[in-house]
Amino acid sequence: MQAKARRDALRKLSNGVYVLTARAGERLGAATVTWVSQASFKPPLLVAAVRRQSKVFACLAESGVAALHVVALDQLALARNFFATTDAGDGTINGEPFADGSTRAPVLRNPPAHLECDVDRIVDIGGDHALVVLRVVDARCEGPFRPLTMADAPWEYGG
Amino acid sequence: MQAKARRDALRKLSNGVYVLTARAGERLGAATVTWVSQASFKPPLLVAAVRRQSKVFACLAESGVAALHVVALDQLALARNFFATTDAGDGTINGEPFADGSTRAPVLRNPPAHLECDVDRIVDIGGDHALVVLRVVDARCEGPFRPLTMADAPWEYGG
Repeated sequence: MQAKARRDALRKLSNGVYVLTARAGERLGAATVTWVSQASFKPPLLVAAVRRQSKVFACLAESGVAALHVVALDQLALARNFFATTDAGDGTINGEPFADGSTRAPVLRNPPAHLECDVDRIVDIGGDHALVVLRVVDARCEGPFRPLTMADAPWEYGG
Repeated sequence: MQAKARRDALRKLSNGVYVLTARAGERLGAATVTWVSQASFKPPLLVAAVRRQSKVFACLAESGVAALHVVALDQLALARNFFATTDAGDGTINGEPFADGSTRAPVLRNPPAHLECDVDRIVDIGGDHALVVLRVVDARCEGPFRPLTMADAPWEYGG
């Protein structure tokens, strides 16, 4: 296989930009993620490929809950904040205000939509990311907005 | 949970448009799919949520191989062709010419990029779709092109 062809084809997959958050006791984890898809209508399931070494993965694996936030087109800076290691302050994560959701996962105030989820299962696929299957248990979506996609952003993740 | 909020938030997830094909002996399966993401860099893995009742699911489960095609922005009609039940003709599937790939999965001629894959595992998540984890073993990507996304198309799949 030509490595360039594989990388180029993989980079033609279309992805959104999301912030995934979780809490385990006092510890918080949050990261910008892009390898996310819905996986079932009934029950409403999502699948997210999450780096196994990340704080957010440790927190969601321990607590069994997580929140996925949809980032709007004009929130590039918000998404960039969550490239960095999680740094929780007084009611903030990486400078972004949050409050406890109904699952107690941290829900960020500024993204216009979020999905609170129970962790249905974690599938070890032997790669650098684990598959996290999430069951949607609560949601919010405010007004019409255009979601940020990787194609809109100056970043690449894939290949 | 408000059903409307959940549906609206799920529809803000960003997805591409792909045609997934597989063969089991003489039987062919092909379908337009959108719930697809990369899932690992090393090894190069994809995850696709595929309707369990579809022909393409039966074929990939039996043969252990499949091909995922990236549809270009100007190929809306091609993607629409694979909404219908698989109808194989003489060297065509649903009117689209194909040839055997290196895995013997059917590779469509017209999409500008494809990924041939071994089925790494199928995860039954108890929903209306199964998770199919695919390992990329061959690929092609021709020239620069803009991939079709669900946001570009007049369709919705999610919520």
